Amino acid sequence: MTRITGVRVHDVRFPTAAAGDGSDAVNRGDYSATYVELATDGPLTGAGFTFTNGRGNELTCAAVRALAHHVEGRPLADLWADPVGFARSLSADVQLRWLGPEKGVIHLATGAVVNAVWDLHAKEAGKPLWQLLADLPTGKLVGCVDFRHITDALTPADAAAILDRGRDGLDARRAELERDGLPSYTTSVGWLGYPDDKVRELARSAYADGWRAMKMKVGGEPADDLRRARIIRAEIGPDALLMMDANQVWEVDEAIARTAALAEADPYWIEEPTHPDDVLGHARIQRAVAPIRVVTGEVAANRVIVKQLLQAGAVRVVQIDACRVGGIPEVLAELLLAAKYGVPVCPHAGGVGLCELVQHLFAFDYLRVGTSLDGRMVEYVDHLHEHFTDPVRTRGGRYVLPREPGYSATMRPASVAEFRFPDGPVWARSGKPG
Amino acid sequence: MTRITGVRVHDVRFPTAAAGDGSDAVNRGDYSATYVELATDGPLTGAGFTFTNGRGNELTCAAVRALAHHVEGRPLADLWADPVGFARSLSADVQLRWLGPEKGVIHLATGAVVNAVWDLHAKEAGKPLWQLLADLPTGKLVGCVDFRHITDALTPADAAAILDRGRDGLDARRAELERDGLPSYTTSVGWLGYPDDKVRELARSAYADGWRAMKMKVGGEPADDLRRARIIRAEIGPDALLMMDANQVWEVDEAIARTAALAEADPYWIEEPTHPDDVLGHARIQRAVAPIRVVTGEVAANRVIVKQLLQAGAVRVVQIDACRVGGIPEVLAELLLAAKYGVPVCPHAGGVGLCELVQHLFAFDYLRVGTSLDGRMVEYVDHLHEHFTDPVRTRGGRYVLPREPGYSATMRPASVAEFRFPDGPVWARSGKPG
Repeated sequence: MTRITGVRVHDVRFPTAAAGDGSDAVNRGDYSATYVELATDGPLTGAGFTFTNGRGNELTCAAVRALAHHVEGRPLADLWADPVGFARSLSADVQLRWLGPEKGVIHLATGAVVNAVWDLHAKEAGKPLWQLLADLPTGKLVGCVDFRHITDALTPADAAAILDRGRDGLDARRAELERDGLPSYTTSVGWLGYPDDKVRELARSAYADGWRAMKMKVGGEPADDLRRARIIRAEIGPDALLMMDANQVWEVDEAIARTAALAEADPYWIEEPTHPDDVLGHARIQRAVAPIRVVTGEVAANRVIVKQLLQAGAVRVVQIDACRVGGIPEVLAELLLAAKYGVPVCPHAGGVGLCELVQHLFAFDYLRVGTSLDGRMVEYVDHLHEHFTDPVRTRGGRYVLPREPGYSATMRPASVAEFRFPDGPVWARSGKPG
Repeated sequence: MTRITGVRVHDVRFPTAAAGDGSDAVNRGDYSATYVELATDGPLTGAGFTFTNGRGNELTCAAVRALAHHVEGRPLADLWADPVGFARSLSADVQLRWLGPEKGVIHLATGAVVNAVWDLHAKEAGKPLWQLLADLPTGKLVGCVDFRHITDALTPADAAAILDRGRDGLDARRAELERDGLPSYTTSVGWLGYPDDKVRELARSAYADGWRAMKMKVGGEPADDLRRARIIRAEIGPDALLMMDANQVWEVDEAIARTAALAEADPYWIEEPTHPDDVLGHARIQRAVAPIRVVTGEVAANRVIVKQLLQAGAVRVVQIDACRVGGIPEVLAELLLAAKYGVPVCPHAGGVGLCELVQHLFAFDYLRVGTSLDGRMVEYVDHLHEHFTDPVRTRGGRYVLPREPGYSATMRPASVAEFRFPDGPVWARSGKPG
């Protein structure tokens, strides 16, 4: 019987700020991971992480240490028998909970630890995580969902009905994903830090590589946003999808006006138009800018926020995040909530390793929950995959379905050593972070 | 010209968990403070803190260190000239913001630092903070309010109108507060960790001391909640106010049923009936349990949540917190939002030093914003005041208006030394935290 014997955490930071990669209206950082390794008394090591933006990664690392006593010494079989009880032992810790509750540093760290446990579950089963989940009987899957504070919108019976329906046609959907891969869109074309020529060249090259959906950042000067939107639209033609991402920079009324001013470039969606906690604000924006879709979720603090976005009709696409919330039990709750309300899920990715994680969530969602590819895409950002032992692969604008056992979260030891902050060679050479 | 020369942070923890003080449906901790001292090149030292619940206080301390570069070396006059710009240099830091945004560990730490700067502003003016604020011209006060992401509910013009009206009768209200003190209620009677006899004796003794409003914790077993409610109601008679606090433990539908089951004890309000992020849930509960008031706010992450609680009619009393949000500029936004929507503010207190802080906010709110005492009370908990150099004083169930310059946030050096974790004598003797 496998037992978890120790929790190691590494502060890993990549010096991306200087290049302008990942720059948007409110963020300019060094893409970083709070990287967790769970040692066991067997041959397996669990890997999980949360993504941060540079400075402050030491806080999520310290939060992992504060949570470690909930996992150290635990038999893996016990955590598998009661996955929600385990996840809540972290998120409802009687002292640490005050620091959230279920949000911010403490919840990011919870996600890293819980995800690392699920990496172990999948490795022990010898399956990629998407398959471990998709193969589970409905009763067991329902027992993996954190329903706390969402039962007014989604009951265990609702979840069971959705997951049972998801068994119909499962084999055909799986064969389809294995053959065709996962539909996706690319965010690598239009960071705010990039000059026009680079944006044009990237859009052209993404189109040539088969991408038919791509995202640009907005929220800078109105004239700059519109000029860049026209450049990309000219490159990709009228049929490809162009998404726009404001990264929370606008007031509610401003979001409505600014989205209208960009309508000529035919945005498929406007992402994070205002503060991520503003459910009612998003609802008002969605009513005003329809048929343009309002989407958000990459920093939705927890399932209670996602529940309300759906209840209020505030979004037409939900962007779940693999690390922002408390790991698989909470992600499952969000996928099922979206299915209950009939809203497609397009997971947030990018950063460090988020693409590696969300491909599993997307595949499971298609196989057992959402069961449609209509309006569903995984985000893709072409950064930092080389640091993972089982990196995402894309072919013609689609993700290739992952095959290796686990959650694809394992980083290469050489990368951890090279980029560890502050003692890794990269930081020792370059000095202070951006 | 005073300049801030350094930021010191102390991890101060009081071993309250063992006594059952502060125990409720979801928290059982060692009341703690992330205590910040701002050294200057002059005679003044600024003090500020955020309250935490024991383990994890090291995280908010580390977050203060991560934010310190935004304040070190800054002339105090610059921070006074642009108080919102300064506060947002912390809350909108392009790398740290990802860890919230504006919530959890990073925002608790922001509150501690920004409040310490306001303690310096008040000390430099030689006034208690409530008076510094109440004396300011409307234009300057409006310039101290963080309106970001709330302008759909409160504009600077709205705020100016409220604050201008607040000048009428100001002198009379101030004389009233100086003569009569601040109305308050006590939460020291009914923690879940206390046995019935202790609850009965505390209710009786609080009533004898002049308290006519007191709060009990609920959210345990239904029969226990009702039995304790009957005990307190029997002691305090039909006219005194009995508040009930569920500390977020219920689902939305459960909250409605459980509140109905306690109605025979005539609760004045039901506090934190469900998850603090659930604006729509609170709105549904408020509609169902009226005329019992739904109240929340002590862990409302930021002004965007408070805005929505008001927009949705989800609460009939707002409980602002002095340390949960990003300091005075955000607290001012919350006070003004409540005034705009005509909802009274009853600040959250207790913990470590929260009473010391919120008395200033309550007095300012009465003097310039809410301008009525109808339905307004400060929470009072009789714990840990002896560790402050300017502790709250009460007389006949009311706070005495504070007089010393500053924000009453300064802890006694001997207390900091005694309770510092893990090296203070208390912790060196007692060993590990609860």
